Amino acid sequence: MVWRAAVKAAYEGRHFTGSQRQPGAFTVEGEVLRALKRIGAVKDPRESRFKAASRTDRGVSSLGNVFAFDTDFRKDELIRALNAATEKVFFYALAEVALDFSPRRARGRWYRYFLPRDGLDLELVREAADMFQGRHDFRSFCRAEGRSTVKSIDSIEILVEQEFILIDMRAREFLWNMVRRIASALEAVGSGRCGVDEVRGALAGRRVSFGLAPSESLVLMDVLYDFPFLPECPATLTRKVRAGREATSVHLSFFDALADRCAGGRL
Amino acid sequence: MVWRAAVKAAYEGRHFTGSQRQPGAFTVEGEVLRALKRIGAVKDPRESRFKAASRTDRGVSSLGNVFAFDTDFRKDELIRALNAATEKVFFYALAEVALDFSPRRARGRWYRYFLPRDGLDLELVREAADMFQGRHDFRSFCRAEGRSTVKSIDSIEILVEQEFILIDMRAREFLWNMVRRIASALEAVGSGRCGVDEVRGALAGRRVSFGLAPSESLVLMDVLYDFPFLPECPATLTRKVRAGREATSVHLSFFDALADRCAGGRL
Repeated sequence: MVWRAAVKAAYEGRHFTGSQRQPGAFTVEGEVLRALKRIGAVKDPRESRFKAASRTDRGVSSLGNVFAFDTDFRKDELIRALNAATEKVFFYALAEVALDFSPRRARGRWYRYFLPRDGLDLELVREAADMFQGRHDFRSFCRAEGRSTVKSIDSIEILVEQEFILIDMRAREFLWNMVRRIASALEAVGSGRCGVDEVRGALAGRRVSFGLAPSESLVLMDVLYDFPFLPECPATLTRKVRAGREATSVHLSFFDALADRCAGGRL
Repeated sequence: MVWRAAVKAAYEGRHFTGSQRQPGAFTVEGEVLRALKRIGAVKDPRESRFKAASRTDRGVSSLGNVFAFDTDFRKDELIRALNAATEKVFFYALAEVALDFSPRRARGRWYRYFLPRDGLDLELVREAADMFQGRHDFRSFCRAEGRSTVKSIDSIEILVEQEFILIDMRAREFLWNMVRRIASALEAVGSGRCGVDEVRGALAGRRVSFGLAPSESLVLMDVLYDFPFLPECPATLTRKVRAGREATSVHLSFFDALADRCAGGRL
């Protein structure tokens, strides 16, 4: 029995050349498809109508991208088998969807940008962030693709967590590079390099470039639909998450100790 | 004027194939030499008598390995220039040493192993660790190289830090794989897979293999000499340390959020 599956997947951007398939490159879609073929869930991407919810650039991480495909694989074994078939992608939730489902038609997308706090003026960042909410022409805040640049941002929330200012943006859809261009503008305002008025001008239609913030600090947090996903946490997933978390804790200890020594500590 | 320099360097093991030069591989020594040549401080490794204090295996990180070489480079510019010439090695201290100095003849070495705490019995780990201190035949705790396996461990300290048991070992020198084999034995005892008596037997000369703990959790913390190193923290170094620390914090946030979702949190 063929059914259409939607799986939620997390991945770290640093391991991939980007999300979209490219011959000869290690990409997220390429790796997901390799895993699907390896377990026998998909033979051909076209035939199974394989589709991703969001394209993420090289370096961008995801906690909630969604991949959909037709398959006859056992539903209760799919998440376990997929996690066993790849080390670099974490599959943690599943939905059976209508046969005409396209993951691109989502109700909303949530991105988080990690901006180093480094003496930025939080109030200025908040003031500038507020201006982006609602419907605007984002032509100064995207990479042109020949499509309309008028979009609506549902909300931009500014949070502080340890050494970061988190920029949480929610919208039905985003233009290419839009989150990173807005993050770069907020950083420019917060550091005093730019005035709030310049951002206002750019949103009113004046062409201004505020630069492009680094992709490594951007995470696609979630893609939302009108139906629920069923969370699953098989041992094949727990093992990978624990190993990744432990390795990252060791790296953080390394940098903490190195920062101490550079600050003139014990040698 | 030719002088002999000793530089302290930190590096993350995950970026390298190991520390020792190998044709066609990305190694720590290869990268340090590439940087030295690039800034014009060294022409030929043999002529400059380039030497490292410790060999570290693939995956092992260092916070204090030492590299020595003859050079006529300006002393007050060396650390700055070296940091600018490579992204993957962090140079943070310098000493002018005698022309016959070999970094291998160190007073002591300090290694730290990060053992995931995961329900290990801390008291058993401490009891087993104590047995390793002092002079023993470590034939069951090294990879044979045809040299004597009798060595002295000055101290093994067991610390607890967040989700890790830290194993701090200090000795004048270690055998190949010795720290990782001892760490694996302590893990076996702490988890109850092995008795303390089996470790005692192995230290008394019986051949037992307790396995080899993963290299990624091992850090060479420092190599000690009878002279001081002068710490230096140029902007070229600060920038790299900050960028590395920030990227690692983002990765840790990623794994924290992923662990939350796997634990049945919000989807």
